[in-house]
Amino acid sequence: MESPILTQWREIGMPRADAKADHKYAPTRCAAAQASTEQGILPPCHHHEAVHDPQLVPCTCPLFSCPWEGHLEVVVSHLRQTHRINILQGAEIVFLATDMHLPAPTDWIIMHSCLGHQFLLVLRKQEKYEGHPQFFATMMLIGTPIQANNFTYRLELNRNQRRLKWEATPRSILECVDSVLSDGDCLVLNTSLAQLFSDNGSLAIGIAITTSKVHSSEAEM
Amino acid sequence: MESPILTQWREIGMPRADAKADHKYAPTRCAAAQASTEQGILPPCHHHEAVHDPQLVPCTCPLFSCPWEGHLEVVVSHLRQTHRINILQGAEIVFLATDMHLPAPTDWIIMHSCLGHQFLLVLRKQEKYEGHPQFFATMMLIGTPIQANNFTYRLELNRNQRRLKWEATPRSILECVDSVLSDGDCLVLNTSLAQLFSDNGSLAIGIAITTSKVHSSEAEM
Repeated sequence: MESPILTQWREIGMPRADAKADHKYAPTRCAAAQASTEQGILPPCHHHEAVHDPQLVPCTCPLFSCPWEGHLEVVVSHLRQTHRINILQGAEIVFLATDMHLPAPTDWIIMHSCLGHQFLLVLRKQEKYEGHPQFFATMMLIGTPIQANNFTYRLELNRNQRRLKWEATPRSILECVDSVLSDGDCLVLNTSLAQLFSDNGSLAIGIAITTSKVHSSEAEM
Repeated sequence: MESPILTQWREIGMPRADAKADHKYAPTRCAAAQASTEQGILPPCHHHEAVHDPQLVPCTCPLFSCPWEGHLEVVVSHLRQTHRINILQGAEIVFLATDMHLPAPTDWIIMHSCLGHQFLLVLRKQEKYEGHPQFFATMMLIGTPIQANNFTYRLELNRNQRRLKWEATPRSILECVDSVLSDGDCLVLNTSLAQLFSDNGSLAIGIAITTSKVHSSEAEM
C-alpha cells in the first residue's frame, strides 16, 4: 500500500481557448492520422492547418491554437518556453491539479522527465453529457509510437482510505490527445469520485513511469 | 505488475426485478439508516417493509424483493440456499461476469469468503444518464460497520496492457448497497472502459481482501 513520492508540483487549470474548433475538426484530422499509421509515420493531428513537411510536428499543447511547428526534438523546449509548461523530474512524482471547480472544458498540463524521455500529462475536465462534467487523464510520450510502446505509466489517486490506479502504455504525442481522451482510453473520474479524492479543490495525482518489458511476458487474467 | 489468481468463477448477470420500486423508496430508507448510525445500530435498508426487531436483518440480495428476514449469522446461508448466490474461497479470486451486454439495470453478484468473513460483491449496470449505461462495483461485508472497518478490498481489471485498480474499505451489508452504488463511492466504469477490459462480453474482476491496519499509519498523498 506504500507509494514513495519524490517530487511535488502545483499547477493551476487553464480553460481551453479553442475547445469548440477542436471538437469540430478533430475527426477529420484523426482519420488522416489513422491512415498514415500503417506507413509508420503519424501526421500532425492538431489545432491548425496541415503541415506539409513530415519531419515537422505541430505544437502539441492542447491549451492553445498555436501555429508553431518544429522537429520532435524541440517540442519540449517549445512547450516550456512558449507555453510555460512546467517539467518535473523523477521516477515517481505527484502532480497537484488545483481549482478542480473550474468549469469544463479545462485542461491541466505538466511534463514529466523520466528514464531519458519526456512525457506530457493531460488532465481534462469535459462534459460528455451536458451538465455532468467528468475528468479524463492520460500521459503521452514526447516521442514516436514505437518508443511509446517501451513504457508503462501509472496514475494513482489516494485519499480517505480509497485508492484508484490506472496503468497503461502511453500514446505518442504524434497521436491525437483529443482522441485518446474522448475515446475514454484513460483514467476517467466522474464528479463524485473526483470529490472523494480531492482536498480543498485540489487533486493530487501520483505519476510513475516504468519500462514495459513485463507486459509481453505477463499472463492476462 | 503480477497478480496471483487462485480461484475463478463465472456468473451470469441477472436483471433486477424491482429496479423501479428500489429507486422510488431508497431515499426514505437511507435517511433512516443514517440517523440510526449514531446509535451504533443500522436499521434495515431494503426492498420490503420495515423490520421491527432490530436483531433481524432483511434479505441483502439486491436482485429480488425478498420478504425474508433473519439474524446476521444466517444471511449467508439464506443467500446461498434461496437465491443460489455462489460463494468463492481464497485470498485472491477472479469473478468472471458474463453477458455484459445485458440491458441496464442488471446486477452480477457473488459472495467471497476470506479471512474468516464473507463479503458480497455487487456489480451493477445502470443508466445514470439515459442512454449511457455505466458499471458500478463494490464489496460489502456481511457483518457490522465496525467489523467492515478492519478490512480493505481491491477490485482489479487487467487486459490489453491496461490495468485499473480500486481499493477501499468495504461497507457493511447493513448499509444500503443501492446508496453506495448510486453515490459513486465504488469502482466506476463507463462503457468504453468496460469494453476495453472485456473479453467476448465477459469482464474478469480480480478481488482481494486484506486487513486494513496499514491505513491508519499510512501517510496520504
